[in-house]
Amino acid sequence: MAMEGYRGFLALLVSALLVGFLSVIFTLIWVLHYREGLGWDGTALEFNWHPVLVVTGFVFILGIAIIVYRLPWTWKCSKLLMKSIHAGLNTVAAILAIISLVAVFDFHNAKKIPNMYSLHSWVGLTAVILYILQLLLGFLVFLLPWAPLSLRALLMPIHVYSGLFIFGTVIATVLMGLTEKLIFALKSPAYSSLPPEGVFTNTLGLLILVFGALIFWIVTRPQWKRPKEPNSVLLQPNGGAPEGVETSVAMNFGNMDKSDSELNNEAAARKRNITLDEAGQRSTM
Amino acid sequence: MAMEGYRGFLALLVSALLVGFLSVIFTLIWVLHYREGLGWDGTALEFNWHPVLVVTGFVFILGIAIIVYRLPWTWKCSKLLMKSIHAGLNTVAAILAIISLVAVFDFHNAKKIPNMYSLHSWVGLTAVILYILQLLLGFLVFLLPWAPLSLRALLMPIHVYSGLFIFGTVIATVLMGLTEKLIFALKSPAYSSLPPEGVFTNTLGLLILVFGALIFWIVTRPQWKRPKEPNSVLLQPNGGAPEGVETSVAMNFGNMDKSDSELNNEAAARKRNITLDEAGQRSTM
Repeated sequence: MAMEGYRGFLALLVSALLVGFLSVIFTLIWVLHYREGLGWDGTALEFNWHPVLVVTGFVFILGIAIIVYRLPWTWKCSKLLMKSIHAGLNTVAAILAIISLVAVFDFHNAKKIPNMYSLHSWVGLTAVILYILQLLLGFLVFLLPWAPLSLRALLMPIHVYSGLFIFGTVIATVLMGLTEKLIFALKSPAYSSLPPEGVFTNTLGLLILVFGALIFWIVTRPQWKRPKEPNSVLLQPNGGAPEGVETSVAMNFGNMDKSDSELNNEAAARKRNITLDEAGQRSTM
Repeated sequence: MAMEGYRGFLALLVSALLVGFLSVIFTLIWVLHYREGLGWDGTALEFNWHPVLVVTGFVFILGIAIIVYRLPWTWKCSKLLMKSIHAGLNTVAAILAIISLVAVFDFHNAKKIPNMYSLHSWVGLTAVILYILQLLLGFLVFLLPWAPLSLRALLMPIHVYSGLFIFGTVIATVLMGLTEKLIFALKSPAYSSLPPEGVFTNTLGLLILVFGALIFWIVTRPQWKRPKEPNSVLLQPNGGAPEGVETSVAMNFGNMDKSDSELNNEAAARKRNITLDEAGQRSTM
């Protein structure tokens, strides 16, 4: 299927992948070269898994999961396959995020450092909890076949918004975490004298911000959303009697060409024979 | 003009105003009660203007400027008036942001503290520079009457995206700034023992995050965008010969019902007799 502005999309996708990959590499260089390295022994080596896993899972993989529906090469794949890939990537990201929390709690407990006092920890834990809820709700409502169409239509804009809000919040949390760690760790020379590690890790922060900016741009361009499938399988959700209602739900972020409120009435939606693919696109982001 | 889901909009608007106002009040209480107070003498009293002005201007006023087109009571006002209000609020926010920078540079210089070493300062200064560019470009292209329609249509999605990106980046920067200040300022008892000031200021950080979340939700709901004006004045931009092209540019965030690429050709746009109001809505956020 042809994509409008394909070359622009490709350029931005390659940039996003490059900047995201660089962010992971920078994080690894930071902990391996400038910090103590990696290990799982309650020392700083275990703490260092925290930034590595967060940037790999909760930033890079989550970012890719957000735009996966927009890859034009996947448009010939079934919506169910794409939803599974979206859910799979998010599951991996969630597991890495949880392990990253274990690493930091282990480290704190071993070193008798209090847990959960900083704004970084408050916002970060909130983001992880919201992300797990988002994942569970997404699985129940959009991946399993039993949720009524009206519920999917109702929750899709919230799902899209929450996903992007969590992603943005994670990036803000990472920037706070880098700030904290640099102030705590850089003593002689101090962070304020901007030693090479300071420059390097500030640059890592900028890379992560640019990665977020690229993902947000890619995911909010209407011309790059996955097109509606003409040959979607017709199913009968919840024992209803749909008249040609497609069960595929577009989880990509597109425009609305009708108002959201029209979707909140399942009967009306069916009457108009609209697809839930359209419903997903009503999510407006 | 009736707004769809008006009560929901009102509830969210009141929440946003309340949370935004609370954020400003919390910042004032923080610097007046927990910190040294306010002054302009190169001491910590001058530094304290930094968070006060940033939260007031760069968070609260900028947030209001972002959603001002969506207030249904303004839909009877001319687009030019609304653009002037949007530009005016952003100008006030920019001035407060610049004064907030002067305060912190003054303080650093007086105390011989290095400038521009932290990730907070790198990201924050970038945000201020981008914001001033955004303001100047917005003024030249959307407020002054001379920019060709094609340029307005081309830049509108970028203007909308940049505005929201800068707003999100400012919030991330504020969270970094709070983190820095709490680590530097809370020594006995330390931040890690979570004294009342720590709880209070962490709560301020959460309030600012919630304010951002509310603004993002309000501005991305398609049903709450300012409607196209049926009686827009027809003007002849740049000496061209428009066939009923409206000069009003919707700076609110709506859907696209045609592709962006169609807009990049002014002749084609005029031929189709589309309005630039629609062009603004093609910005997709």
